[in-house]
Amino acid sequence: MMIYNDLLAIIGDADRVTINETVREQHSKGLTYHAGKLPDIVVFPITEDEVVEIVKYASVNKIAIVPFGAGSSLEGHVIPLNRGISLDFTLMNSVVSVQPEDFLVKVQPGVTRKQLNLYLKKHGLFFPVDPGADATIGGMSATNASGTNAVAYGTMKRNVLGLRAVLANGDVISAGGETIKSSAGYNLTELFVGSEGTLGIFTEITLKLSGVPEETIAAKAYFSDVVTAGAAAEMVLQAGVRIGKIELVDAKTIEAVNHYKGTAYKEMPTLFLEYSGSKEEVETGITFIEQLMAEAGSRDFEYERDSLRRAELWDARHSAAIAIVNQKPNQLLVSTDVCVPISELSKGISYSRGVIEKYNIDAALLGHVGDGNFHAVFGVNPNDPDEMERFHKMNDEIISYALQHRGTCTGEHGVGMGKIPYLEMEKSSSLQVMKAIKATLDPDNILNPGKIFINKEIEASV
Amino acid sequence: MMIYNDLLAIIGDADRVTINETVREQHSKGLTYHAGKLPDIVVFPITEDEVVEIVKYASVNKIAIVPFGAGSSLEGHVIPLNRGISLDFTLMNSVVSVQPEDFLVKVQPGVTRKQLNLYLKKHGLFFPVDPGADATIGGMSATNASGTNAVAYGTMKRNVLGLRAVLANGDVISAGGETIKSSAGYNLTELFVGSEGTLGIFTEITLKLSGVPEETIAAKAYFSDVVTAGAAAEMVLQAGVRIGKIELVDAKTIEAVNHYKGTAYKEMPTLFLEYSGSKEEVETGITFIEQLMAEAGSRDFEYERDSLRRAELWDARHSAAIAIVNQKPNQLLVSTDVCVPISELSKGISYSRGVIEKYNIDAALLGHVGDGNFHAVFGVNPNDPDEMERFHKMNDEIISYALQHRGTCTGEHGVGMGKIPYLEMEKSSSLQVMKAIKATLDPDNILNPGKIFINKEIEASV
Repeated sequence: MMIYNDLLAIIGDADRVTINETVREQHSKGLTYHAGKLPDIVVFPITEDEVVEIVKYASVNKIAIVPFGAGSSLEGHVIPLNRGISLDFTLMNSVVSVQPEDFLVKVQPGVTRKQLNLYLKKHGLFFPVDPGADATIGGMSATNASGTNAVAYGTMKRNVLGLRAVLANGDVISAGGETIKSSAGYNLTELFVGSEGTLGIFTEITLKLSGVPEETIAAKAYFSDVVTAGAAAEMVLQAGVRIGKIELVDAKTIEAVNHYKGTAYKEMPTLFLEYSGSKEEVETGITFIEQLMAEAGSRDFEYERDSLRRAELWDARHSAAIAIVNQKPNQLLVSTDVCVPISELSKGISYSRGVIEKYNIDAALLGHVGDGNFHAVFGVNPNDPDEMERFHKMNDEIISYALQHRGTCTGEHGVGMGKIPYLEMEKSSSLQVMKAIKATLDPDNILNPGKIFINKEIEASV
Repeated sequence: MMIYNDLLAIIGDADRVTINETVREQHSKGLTYHAGKLPDIVVFPITEDEVVEIVKYASVNKIAIVPFGAGSSLEGHVIPLNRGISLDFTLMNSVVSVQPEDFLVKVQPGVTRKQLNLYLKKHGLFFPVDPGADATIGGMSATNASGTNAVAYGTMKRNVLGLRAVLANGDVISAGGETIKSSAGYNLTELFVGSEGTLGIFTEITLKLSGVPEETIAAKAYFSDVVTAGAAAEMVLQAGVRIGKIELVDAKTIEAVNHYKGTAYKEMPTLFLEYSGSKEEVETGITFIEQLMAEAGSRDFEYERDSLRRAELWDARHSAAIAIVNQKPNQLLVSTDVCVPISELSKGISYSRGVIEKYNIDAALLGHVGDGNFHAVFGVNPNDPDEMERFHKMNDEIISYALQHRGTCTGEHGVGMGKIPYLEMEKSSSLQVMKAIKATLDPDNILNPGKIFINKEIEASV
């Protein structure tokens, strides 16, 4: 095969260039239901120079390239729709340098979140963005990932200070830098963060770190209904409490966890909270939060300081998705991902529970209440057309509701393949600008083609 | 004049279209030394539709347009280098809507920061970005402004959730939205924030608001030297203290304030701090900060709760720039604006004081220590060639130092005209991408031409 010989000549190491069926199969799909497609070849670069040479080769020959990290995407980002090269960053997983005194670290894109936090432990620092999966920093940057810590620490875009990227023509650019602030020209860093591999391929990412707080308290508050729980969360935010995490889980979800794990958690809408700071800050903070929860009508309030007990306290939240997905064998995890303004959240969750019941789906409902982002998470059998149809209808109705209530179709998972039609509805006016930027930077559409949007102008020219 | 008649026909109100010499003169320059240039005409739009019609007219006739807000730019952003239309947003200054429960507000671009905060007071909310001047939200968005609150609340880019902008071809786009988080396609909001009027003209901006904290304490800590003071600030950040403001003022600056105001502030490097939260949080927080300052070698520590006394305590910080500029009559304020990683800050300030003394300049040195951004602020007589030469040499040396120490030439003032050669040094690799985006979105270079960079490809084609 010519592509194999050509890429082998570039890489010079047969262990890192493969057309092996099993490896290609592993690089054909993400975590969930989107139909996979085999890449022609999988390459494991170890240096930026190699990435540059591969991209130049792909550019000359108009071959598609899809960057691949942990493969934990929920929207089909890593699927090589136009075949071509799957560029696996697993081996480009070094911490390049750490400057603890500046709260920053430079990493290669294949470094995973857990790997990084293990590395940072000795410095008393951590990287706060936690999407759940042990994703790579490259993948998390590509989708602007977030998770439960976002209410306190923001999403990836707030924590990526700079990056190096290889453009479609093989040029390497350096965007952003090592300072917390800058007004030096267009904010390319935050244009590339969230661009899902369609504008450039990351080769190095500079991250802002945070100090590990001296003390953390985890808490739970129970409510009679979701709307009251949502209003309680709003009160916390309105009071200016600098909450670390604030998550809402609905009663049906707790019921499922109890059923799956044999636990006896109160089957009521529950707010899971975390508050961090100095010992004294935490002490006064938790008292204040307890008061707020009582005023907001909480039926009960519990909290724990010890790290093991904190984990136990939060167990129902952490176990929710797995409990739901593992109810039946051979299920693929699927998740909705809408985000709405805070005041729309509890109504949105109530509405979504109704839709889920209408389609007779066993879904957990989890809300990042501080951000207005919530997920209906469950397992599907992609080979069951009836189940898939019910999933798509439910997804469609929840997204339509969110868009009608000032929301977005994706809070943190990204567009990938799965959200393309919804992005067209949501961003009708600005999609032309996105497409124009894509066409300028990648005129032959070789970088992760078919993701975020279908660029007819580009497609036609290729 | 044809342009007058044409624009009058569009606007239909002779009070809002003018070629009056005095008004054009007012729109010919920013606050500081950059040489002004008269626009051909000044127009005061009151609706988005009017902005669209003006831009369409300018597009067809290839006439330059420069948006104008409060005119408080420090880098010549508002100077109509290619003449044409100065688009004054003073009359487009309504709060469009406020959703207190969602912590968000939509404003027209001419709303000023102080006007907005006065409006928000009744809701117990405020907009935290404070660049000092009573700038417009449009201008602050255009330069990605920040100021003393940035360490706690971030810069404009973190506080602009969405915007409407008129593109060079007259199309209106809506970017971002009303949610705290989104991964829905390219992050155009943060591409347009900081684009200095070169990519589009803002007609509406959606801002994230913050709750007014229950209690605020202001504090001062004195140190024997700048490096020790800088290290103390670093300790605060490293300890994860959620500081509200943290500013460093050097001894020479305090000396100038005392000289100008007849005060007797200790002429030592001083850290000015602010800490906010609930009553209890603030109480424990300030005790912790005092301990940290003592450990870091502070010579003395003072703090105040009452709002009037807080202002008195911070007086030396607030008065520094004005004290310096008003030492002599008829001076124009100039300011450097470098930003470096935190650990480079105190060394950078020491170095800069040396450069200032070498050129025999009376400058205040003020550092946003939490962000690594610091300013040498002083007054110049733009007609004194010797003084201007010393200013440019000093500016050049401080910027070179910052770029050699992993810094940026502009932390918050933007590039405008003044930083163009420095941006070329700083962003050599990514400037081509910025220029390509500009050429795609504004092929005739009508939107604020000559700012951020000189786009030779565009200039040649026009």
